[in-house]
Amino acid sequence: MDGNRFAAIQGVMENMRLQAVALVPGANFKKIFARDFHLMERPLLVIIPAEGKAVAIVPSLEMSAFEKIIPQGKIFDKIFPWHDQAGYRKAFLNAADSLPQLKKAQRFGLEAQRMRAFEQMALQEAFPDANFIDAHVAISSIRLKKTESEIKQIKKAIKISENALVATIDEIKVGQSEKEIGAILLKQIFSHNADGIAFNPIVAAADNSAQPHAQARLDYRIKQGDPLLIDFGASYNGYNADITRTFFVSEVSKDNQEFYQTVLKANEQGRKISKPGLTAGEIDDAVQSVLENSKFADCARHKTGHGLGLDVHEEPYIMRGNNQKLTEGMVYTIEPGLYRKQGGVRIEDVVVQTESASECLTSFPRELMIVG
Amino acid sequence: MDGNRFAAIQGVMENMRLQAVALVPGANFKKIFARDFHLMERPLLVIIPAEGKAVAIVPSLEMSAFEKIIPQGKIFDKIFPWHDQAGYRKAFLNAADSLPQLKKAQRFGLEAQRMRAFEQMALQEAFPDANFIDAHVAISSIRLKKTESEIKQIKKAIKISENALVATIDEIKVGQSEKEIGAILLKQIFSHNADGIAFNPIVAAADNSAQPHAQARLDYRIKQGDPLLIDFGASYNGYNADITRTFFVSEVSKDNQEFYQTVLKANEQGRKISKPGLTAGEIDDAVQSVLENSKFADCARHKTGHGLGLDVHEEPYIMRGNNQKLTEGMVYTIEPGLYRKQGGVRIEDVVVQTESASECLTSFPRELMIVG
Repeated sequence: MDGNRFAAIQGVMENMRLQAVALVPGANFKKIFARDFHLMERPLLVIIPAEGKAVAIVPSLEMSAFEKIIPQGKIFDKIFPWHDQAGYRKAFLNAADSLPQLKKAQRFGLEAQRMRAFEQMALQEAFPDANFIDAHVAISSIRLKKTESEIKQIKKAIKISENALVATIDEIKVGQSEKEIGAILLKQIFSHNADGIAFNPIVAAADNSAQPHAQARLDYRIKQGDPLLIDFGASYNGYNADITRTFFVSEVSKDNQEFYQTVLKANEQGRKISKPGLTAGEIDDAVQSVLENSKFADCARHKTGHGLGLDVHEEPYIMRGNNQKLTEGMVYTIEPGLYRKQGGVRIEDVVVQTESASECLTSFPRELMIVG
Repeated sequence: MDGNRFAAIQGVMENMRLQAVALVPGANFKKIFARDFHLMERPLLVIIPAEGKAVAIVPSLEMSAFEKIIPQGKIFDKIFPWHDQAGYRKAFLNAADSLPQLKKAQRFGLEAQRMRAFEQMALQEAFPDANFIDAHVAISSIRLKKTESEIKQIKKAIKISENALVATIDEIKVGQSEKEIGAILLKQIFSHNADGIAFNPIVAAADNSAQPHAQARLDYRIKQGDPLLIDFGASYNGYNADITRTFFVSEVSKDNQEFYQTVLKANEQGRKISKPGLTAGEIDDAVQSVLENSKFADCARHKTGHGLGLDVHEEPYIMRGNNQKLTEGMVYTIEPGLYRKQGGVRIEDVVVQTESASECLTSFPRELMIVG
């Protein structure tokens, strides 16, 4: 894709009437360059003008790696390296000088969910006339349709995750703390050859599972009757898995069974109706309506799901009002949940849109399961 | 610290003549609230005015967790939850309305290395007169002096890391790929009960180790004479370790021995002279001068080190020109490196400043070691 590496971005600029776009390392960067960068306090930026060639601002210590992403030096007009001891401001100013066509640029697109404020501030100093426009969704649209190879890598990340979960369940015992179970899960994820984790696993029992993004506790030990919610994902080659199952420890009350079955029904509904042609909002409507028409209507807290790929949360967001049409190659989660004081239940699967239907990539059983 | 939770931030505002500061989840947030949040596409923000009480903007699904960080609801004047389906813009506008004293605010401080552009854009819409000022360094100064308990947790993260490295070395064999060695390391980190990893481990041999932040390759198998650079850290309770050792596979050339000893001399120099009273810049000067006065002067690429704690890279940066005086309780890395085409060497330790000297927290041997 070399000569044409920025073709999709050029299309975005045309649609949004942008005079330039700035990219920072992250999922879009990795999609375009097949390489990501450790950054933290050191900005690395690519500026793509609508007319003319791109330039890059690169920390010196990343130059040898950066040069590997440029096959014949033909992608960039100029690269402005900057050294730790000199700081990055000068590199931004020099980059702006080399782009006279952007001197009066008014519409400058950013990946605003990814770029940090200090990078935007440095850009603003270099391009004082620029108005920065959030082009995150539009730029990220280059990752909406997953290729066969990408789907294969997501499947591999899911396989690792599911095998790790099977092995973890075998080790769960009444009396363990959430932290201990989390440690077992992490050990199993990496024993199954994950490259990394999509996010810090959520392992939450009893009242803690009532927080959709709970943090594991050292001081709570799981006991009979507790719901135990596990939400996690391995990553493989930069591609992420994301799966949630909620178990019950030793036994389950009638009331919790009904609570669980309501979430399961919503999950089934989401998987069943997913298909190209519907909008993301319509999926959420259908899933939420199962929850809202149940006796647990007031326990819903969040949208149905999110896209999954190089980012753990990405487009398409499966959310009311999102008119994005589902199309072949989109990968997203279906993860309805219900949360009340004594505990929460969430059941999360990953689906990919095929030509005319959808395929579920997660296969871990969804029937209510007793552990410990 | 409740009544006084923002006292240190109030001091920062006074020094920088700021009318308000906005905090987002991350290391400073965790230091203040002892809690972090999963965020991604959902902004969560705390606005602290110089005069009057703070307000918060919180995604609905985080409300139950957020309420736990507010002991008696006395910290915040108002909390503005926002629901996925409604979006966050209204919550920002309502928050601004509730802070009439900031209506004409000119100086608004941000953690600009942490806050993302879309959060800044939402703030700008809510506070159209605000000029945003990068207060990242000043705000983060609340984390410069580590408490005894924090040092204990960093030590624990380092202990886990060093034990994992010992176990990994035992499994290294000629012919393994960098990726395989990385997988062994990750498995060992989590078998030793890490909570997480500070960053994706760097495992790089031969020419790949010439990139300071190399990515492990699937297709290169380590062979006799290769340098093998391993840079990684476990995390424990949110506190990070960071250690680098460079080994040689089966044998080492005379030239590589000299290359290694030069880096080791610089590392020793950094550890030896570190003590309260010197500036961070003076440490870097001393370490770089060892490299610059060697025959490998042109192989230096980066500063000596960085602070370490809740963030993997934080103040104080051990870098030329940084006039920050070292004081008791500061924790930072000493990690000189040399990089040339055929490979790189880096040796990284972590030191803490005591009352009158410095203590090295890493104890893994630094003598040239043959593996495989």
